[in-house]
Amino acid sequence: MELNTALEKLQSLQSKLSAYNHATSLIYLDGATYAPKGTASNRAKTLSVLSEESYMLSTSEETIEMLEYLDENKEKLSEKDKRIVFLALKDIKEMKKIPVEEYVAYQQLVVESEDAWHTAKENNDFESFRPYLEKVFEYQKRFAKYCAPEKHPYNYCLNNYEDGLTMEKCDAFFETLRTHLVPLIKKIANREQLSDKCLKGSFDDASQERFSIELMKIIGIDLNKCALATTEHPFTISLGSHHDVRITTNYDKENFASSMYSVIHEGGHALYDMNSDDDYAYTFLDGGVSMGIHESQSRFYENLLGRSRGFVEYVFPKLKECFPWQMKDYTSEDIYKAVNLVTPSLIRTEADEVTYCLHVMVRYELEKRIMSDELEVKDLPSEWNRLYKEYLGVDVPNDSEGVLQDSHWSGGGIGYFPSYALGSAYGAQILAKMKTSINVDECLKNGDFSTINEWNKNNIWKYGCLYKPGELLEKVLEADFDPMYYIEYLEEKYTKLYNIEE
Amino acid sequence: MELNTALEKLQSLQSKLSAYNHATSLIYLDGATYAPKGTASNRAKTLSVLSEESYMLSTSEETIEMLEYLDENKEKLSEKDKRIVFLALKDIKEMKKIPVEEYVAYQQLVVESEDAWHTAKENNDFESFRPYLEKVFEYQKRFAKYCAPEKHPYNYCLNNYEDGLTMEKCDAFFETLRTHLVPLIKKIANREQLSDKCLKGSFDDASQERFSIELMKIIGIDLNKCALATTEHPFTISLGSHHDVRITTNYDKENFASSMYSVIHEGGHALYDMNSDDDYAYTFLDGGVSMGIHESQSRFYENLLGRSRGFVEYVFPKLKECFPWQMKDYTSEDIYKAVNLVTPSLIRTEADEVTYCLHVMVRYELEKRIMSDELEVKDLPSEWNRLYKEYLGVDVPNDSEGVLQDSHWSGGGIGYFPSYALGSAYGAQILAKMKTSINVDECLKNGDFSTINEWNKNNIWKYGCLYKPGELLEKVLEADFDPMYYIEYLEEKYTKLYNIEE
Repeated sequence: MELNTALEKLQSLQSKLSAYNHATSLIYLDGATYAPKGTASNRAKTLSVLSEESYMLSTSEETIEMLEYLDENKEKLSEKDKRIVFLALKDIKEMKKIPVEEYVAYQQLVVESEDAWHTAKENNDFESFRPYLEKVFEYQKRFAKYCAPEKHPYNYCLNNYEDGLTMEKCDAFFETLRTHLVPLIKKIANREQLSDKCLKGSFDDASQERFSIELMKIIGIDLNKCALATTEHPFTISLGSHHDVRITTNYDKENFASSMYSVIHEGGHALYDMNSDDDYAYTFLDGGVSMGIHESQSRFYENLLGRSRGFVEYVFPKLKECFPWQMKDYTSEDIYKAVNLVTPSLIRTEADEVTYCLHVMVRYELEKRIMSDELEVKDLPSEWNRLYKEYLGVDVPNDSEGVLQDSHWSGGGIGYFPSYALGSAYGAQILAKMKTSINVDECLKNGDFSTINEWNKNNIWKYGCLYKPGELLEKVLEADFDPMYYIEYLEEKYTKLYNIEE
Repeated sequence: MELNTALEKLQSLQSKLSAYNHATSLIYLDGATYAPKGTASNRAKTLSVLSEESYMLSTSEETIEMLEYLDENKEKLSEKDKRIVFLALKDIKEMKKIPVEEYVAYQQLVVESEDAWHTAKENNDFESFRPYLEKVFEYQKRFAKYCAPEKHPYNYCLNNYEDGLTMEKCDAFFETLRTHLVPLIKKIANREQLSDKCLKGSFDDASQERFSIELMKIIGIDLNKCALATTEHPFTISLGSHHDVRITTNYDKENFASSMYSVIHEGGHALYDMNSDDDYAYTFLDGGVSMGIHESQSRFYENLLGRSRGFVEYVFPKLKECFPWQMKDYTSEDIYKAVNLVTPSLIRTEADEVTYCLHVMVRYELEKRIMSDELEVKDLPSEWNRLYKEYLGVDVPNDSEGVLQDSHWSGGGIGYFPSYALGSAYGAQILAKMKTSINVDECLKNGDFSTINEWNKNNIWKYGCLYKPGELLEKVLEADFDPMYYIEYLEEKYTKLYNIEE
């Protein structure tokens, strides 16, 4: 084979897989937003065909021969192509270990499982969802055995979202968080509580949508390449390349902050995806490198920036424009305090920064035990409720607000949750680094996101998947990852907010 | 080859092509509804890959060998499989005559061309759209030469929408219409004009959407399998099978009837598509057989049913619920008269039943002349305006309301327009036939669409593409097609409405 021929074939493979990706992502987005209720099996049928086609294409002899040839000649490749070949070979070799029928059946399962989850959440009926969730976990265990028999099955899951992550690392990380955050939460609980009255009232969808679009503009999202839709559980998705990205939100008619912070969170994901180097479009390097790094960006915008005093001050006039009578008695300081109210609660996506990681730990603990065969899916609701009581001190009134609250497991996202906590901690250290060259507080006060985004683009976003997550993090931080940045950020911010004496 | 093996291969081919269809249709729908403005080239890239994949799959030696084997053994096949093989061979042999590069480039062109049309229509800028439209016509001429060198190129176009249709038939049909309708229009013009004041006012999108959903329910659309979206130019599209169909509309804030009749029109298309025999899902027999028959259904619901006195009476209370203060001074009789006001106008989709076909004739004339090399695209706007003056007596104030008003040409729909007029005429004869066994007026007055839909399902819808359009029509009518049914329907209805003395 000629090197050029092989590179052309690689290009064509990437174009085709990007197109399949566009199609399957759009079908997923449609299912979660606009599709009529009774159409899941129609989508499942199409997705099983498309996933089989892309499996066959990826694992064909011709593809593997081409990739292995390029791998053998990697010293002749550019840094970009070298990384592409590495990623492709890794993914495809793993995919090939899964029998095609199981691969396809699993794609079909998750569509039906997500549909079942929607209905189950609506009806507070875990039992109707249980058979699907059992199958999802069974498949994950089987896939772990096929793909990484040498690893603990849960480490296989973790690695799907953060290359190199292990239970040991997670345990240590969560232990550090727990050691510092539990005392902080106790101290806060002993102080006078902040009020979130100003977030509550009556907020129609149209005004919330208008406010969402304002927020997208403020944080610097190009609306020519990104649109907003509504769904049950907010997410971000790229369609084929970083040239078309969609975010979703869910309007709480009684609390505008719920959607506000979903939009900023998903907006952070979108900014990361949309700002890959343009040369990476339609290649395996396009978009964010791992869920840990992804969440470092989404939770960076949501919390480190979005819940700062400067940002809330800047946004407040827009908020008053969209909700004039609801805001008439409040100041930006009221909003700032309200969106930083710390209180153990039921719903992860609406949790404050301090208790947030405890929500993640519940999920981590449960996933780990199921993947270790120490817990059965049927016992998930009772264990969920027990851990919420133990970690957060709250009683879970029903499964819809308990074990059914998140969409991740229904879609096969086992091992995803730790990324949220890790990402939050990465983000705090990234912020500290950013502050050595940018006056972030000043930018926020002035709504100057172009300076902040420029820094993120040059240091993180543009690289797409060129580096491993760990490498990228080291490159941007110029130091090892240290969760104490996150803890110190939380301690400093909330000690002030709650007037806690050291 | 074994017969069973061949039939399995046929099944697999149909599943795959249905899946590609789902993907490409959804990408089209997304582009026309929710997608951000700057993403057309991203969609074009994906569509070019998917269309190449489906071209290669359809025209592969293996596929053709299988189809030819089945064709040689057709006496052993069921009626259904026989028709599937016939349709597949016909389409694929034709497709294979087009070089793959041109086939793919054309798919990409139409995405970009539709995007250019949107912008051109918005900006009243035909010149920016002209190069795209020129290319669309060039491709159509080239495809006609490849696929049907023995035919006039415009007959090739007509046949893409109505098997067996020719310019000769169209000319005769339109001449009949002209002979009878032009005198009717003149008589109406001499009578006192009806008022459409009651349709006009201020109608917010949310209330119009609520009313649209009511209309979909009334005409019997299963909302579990069909959803509504908004777009520039309303259309209906099936996603992979008749189990998921979408209709679109466009809300005129100053006239609720515009969207009302779009919804009923597209609803007619949707009913037809959604009621194919369930056995036909994921086969080439799924959905409507031709655009002529399709328009016979859409325009049947829109006009023959939707603009009847009985229907308007039945719908009026719902209309008042959705628009209470706008309707407070009006009666259902006011609405009935207003939606049947006859007046030569600019916009086809909003034209009354009597002048409608003149709008179609303008387009027919222009397409025919371009495909005959007797007119150039650059001269379309001036010729459009000249014919509107000649046929309808109206002055076209700008291209947005003139030659740019319809989306069809931008998407390659050359030869489509005659279907609207033909379908309208088919519909009138179908109605006459239906009335021999059903009391249609009584059904309309009672909002009983199940009886009407049942008749349509048993006589038309369930057959999908099992019969040729001409055969199906003959089967349902038990007579030859005769445009006089349509003319007599119009003469009777409008003579009464306008108190014209015979």
